Amino acid sequence: MNESGLLIVLSGPSGAGKGTVVKALLEQQEGLRLSVSATTRTPRPGELHGQHYFFLPKEEFVAKIEQGKMLEYAQYCGNYYGTPAEPIHQWRADGLDVLLEIEIQGGGQIKQKCPDCVGIFLLPPSLAELENRLRARGTEPEDVIAKRMATARDELSGVSGYDYAVVNDSIGQTVRRIQTIIAAEKLRFSRVKQTSDLWKGSCPSC
Amino acid sequence: MNESGLLIVLSGPSGAGKGTVVKALLEQQEGLRLSVSATTRTPRPGELHGQHYFFLPKEEFVAKIEQGKMLEYAQYCGNYYGTPAEPIHQWRADGLDVLLEIEIQGGGQIKQKCPDCVGIFLLPPSLAELENRLRARGTEPEDVIAKRMATARDELSGVSGYDYAVVNDSIGQTVRRIQTIIAAEKLRFSRVKQTSDLWKGSCPSC
Repeated sequence: MNESGLLIVLSGPSGAGKGTVVKALLEQQEGLRLSVSATTRTPRPGELHGQHYFFLPKEEFVAKIEQGKMLEYAQYCGNYYGTPAEPIHQWRADGLDVLLEIEIQGGGQIKQKCPDCVGIFLLPPSLAELENRLRARGTEPEDVIAKRMATARDELSGVSGYDYAVVNDSIGQTVRRIQTIIAAEKLRFSRVKQTSDLWKGSCPSC
Repeated sequence: MNESGLLIVLSGPSGAGKGTVVKALLEQQEGLRLSVSATTRTPRPGELHGQHYFFLPKEEFVAKIEQGKMLEYAQYCGNYYGTPAEPIHQWRADGLDVLLEIEIQGGGQIKQKCPDCVGIFLLPPSLAELENRLRARGTEPEDVIAKRMATARDELSGVSGYDYAVVNDSIGQTVRRIQTIIAAEKLRFSRVKQTSDLWKGSCPSC
C-alpha cells in the first residue's frame, strides 16, 4: 500500500500539554486525523466507542495482537490498551496524515514497526514550569506531583528515538512549529521521489 | 566545537535554478551565509577573492587538502576546486547557518564528512520544463543542451543521500519551502537537546 500520508507520533511528560496541543492541531491542520486507541476496559460514563476508545472484548483484542493488527499494545491495571493498525494504514493510503498521542514506550514500538513515522517529543519550558502546571491542575496531592516529577525527569534523561523536540511555551507557537515539521517532512527526498513524475518509469527499487 | 548553525547543501541539475534560489534565500533568510569555494584557476575579469572564489596558489590548495582543511575537492580542466572547512566551522560555531551550492559528487563528500548537514536537491517541475529553461538561456548550441539534458537524466536517476527534494516551480514558493526545512531542522531532537536547559547536568554522552 502506498502510504503518502504521514504518521506523527507525539509524546511527552505529563504536564507538557499534549492534550491541548492535540486539540489545537486537529482544529488548525488540514487533512490530519487522530488515531483512536483500543482498550478492553469498560467505558466510563460519557465515553463513546470509536471516539474516546474502541472498546473491545478481551478475546477480540488478543486476536488482533496475534494477527499483527495492533501497532503497539500494553497491559495496565489488568486491561489491554493498544493502537489499531488498520485505520492508520487506510488514512495514510488516502493521503491523510495521522496523529498519534502515546507514551514513550508505545512510541518506541511504533517507531520499530513504522520507521518512517515522525516522532515529536513535547517538552515543558523548564522542570520548574512543569511542576507549576501539575500543581495548577489542583487535582493531585503533593506525593502524586512528586512522583510525576520524578517520572518526568526519568523520561527526559532516557528518551531517544524521537526525530524532533518542541518546547511548548505557547500553544500558538507550538502548533506552528509542529505544522512546520509536517510541511518539511512532506519535502523528504524519499516522499517526493515516490510522487514526482520526474522519476516515473525509472526502476522502482532505486 | 559546538556547531549550532546548520550546514545546508544545495544541489540540482543544471537549469533547476540553483543560482536564483541561492540569491533569493540569502536576501530573505536571516543568519544565513554562503560558503565560498576555493580554486587554483586564474580569476576572470571582475571576479573578487573571497566573494566569487578564494583564489589560491596550487601549493597552498594542496597543503589545505593534506591538512584536512577542505571539506571536499575535485580537479577540473587542470585546476583544483574545493570547499574550505574553516569558515564553515566558524560560522556554525557562531550560530549562523551556512549554505553550500555544490554539484552532486561534492555533495556526497560533504555528507560523509558532515553527516549532520542538511541535503536539499532542487528539482525542475519536469524534464520538458528543464529543457525549456536551458533553451531559454539562448547561450548554448543544441548539442550542448542535449548533453546537459542527458546529464540531468543521469543525475536524477542516480541521486541519493539528499534529505529533501524541492521542486522549483516558483521562486517564492521554493524559498518558503527551504525556509520551512531550515525551521524544522532547528527542531531536530538532537539539536534541541544540545541547547535546552532541561538536559543540563545530564550525562553529555547520552
